[in-house]
Amino acid sequence: MDGVLADTTEQFFQFDERDFGRRRTWEEIIGKPESIGFPNAKQYVRTKDFFRTAPVMSESQLVLSELNKRYEVFIVSAAVEFPQSLFEKYEWLSEFFPFITWQQIVFCGSKAIIEADIMIDDHFKNLDPFKGQTILFSQPHNLLQHSSKHKRVESWSEIAGILL
Amino acid sequence: MDGVLADTTEQFFQFDERDFGRRRTWEEIIGKPESIGFPNAKQYVRTKDFFRTAPVMSESQLVLSELNKRYEVFIVSAAVEFPQSLFEKYEWLSEFFPFITWQQIVFCGSKAIIEADIMIDDHFKNLDPFKGQTILFSQPHNLLQHSSKHKRVESWSEIAGILL
Repeated sequence: MDGVLADTTEQFFQFDERDFGRRRTWEEIIGKPESIGFPNAKQYVRTKDFFRTAPVMSESQLVLSELNKRYEVFIVSAAVEFPQSLFEKYEWLSEFFPFITWQQIVFCGSKAIIEADIMIDDHFKNLDPFKGQTILFSQPHNLLQHSSKHKRVESWSEIAGILL
Repeated sequence: MDGVLADTTEQFFQFDERDFGRRRTWEEIIGKPESIGFPNAKQYVRTKDFFRTAPVMSESQLVLSELNKRYEVFIVSAAVEFPQSLFEKYEWLSEFFPFITWQQIVFCGSKAIIEADIMIDDHFKNLDPFKGQTILFSQPHNLLQHSSKHKRVESWSEIAGILL
């Protein structure tokens, strides 16, 4: 969800700019976990409405609505670490992805218990142990990591090209 | 979680008695889905604090704490149908099962996406499609259903006998 459907990186940029008075440069955050790239990140993710007001990733609504017609789609978010975000994330999904039903939503701590055929994620820690096909969604924090196992994509239209 | 760790049946009894002025008899609810056995059940599960104040199933704390030392335990709750319950369920688990970390909690809509070796559940709909070992926790709503596939247990001490 975060970094794939929700543009949490942009949300971090905006919260960070509010605190530091200038937009952080791309170079300052590349290859760094968000908690390092944005010094107050750990505070932001516990701030009310951080997840509720996150921008939607470009093209994700159209592509996911098409995927949803052809695949059994689940939205899996490692959200339980921030329990106050659970309801916000549910509301956010309901607003921006109304075609996703409650039956299709999973909020977990670890994604190790998830069984599926394809996983789209921005974290190597989630993709590495996954048994099925893996698609790595490019985000600044994962740009310096490489793996031949995962297909890296830069956008949802690239996902459409692979899966539709 | 519900009907296994949380004694939601007892919670239904208590909410029901508050509305109807007498405790419903066991015979009135046996074999019926909760939404039939307790006429206002659909309203109760959307009532603030219904899940937060549910009684803990007898012996579950001791047995689960022992299981947690020997197994990789996940608490999987089909909670997303009632999104306002998500935070309540997290708080409830934190209070009564403090040894369960956020990494071990999964809130989902459907349990079909869950991969594990053993499932303890009170619903045939969750156990039937599960590929691993299945343990059916007896609850009034499932008492008239039978299956040779699932091992029925009446208590957490029976679970201890099987798994510890």
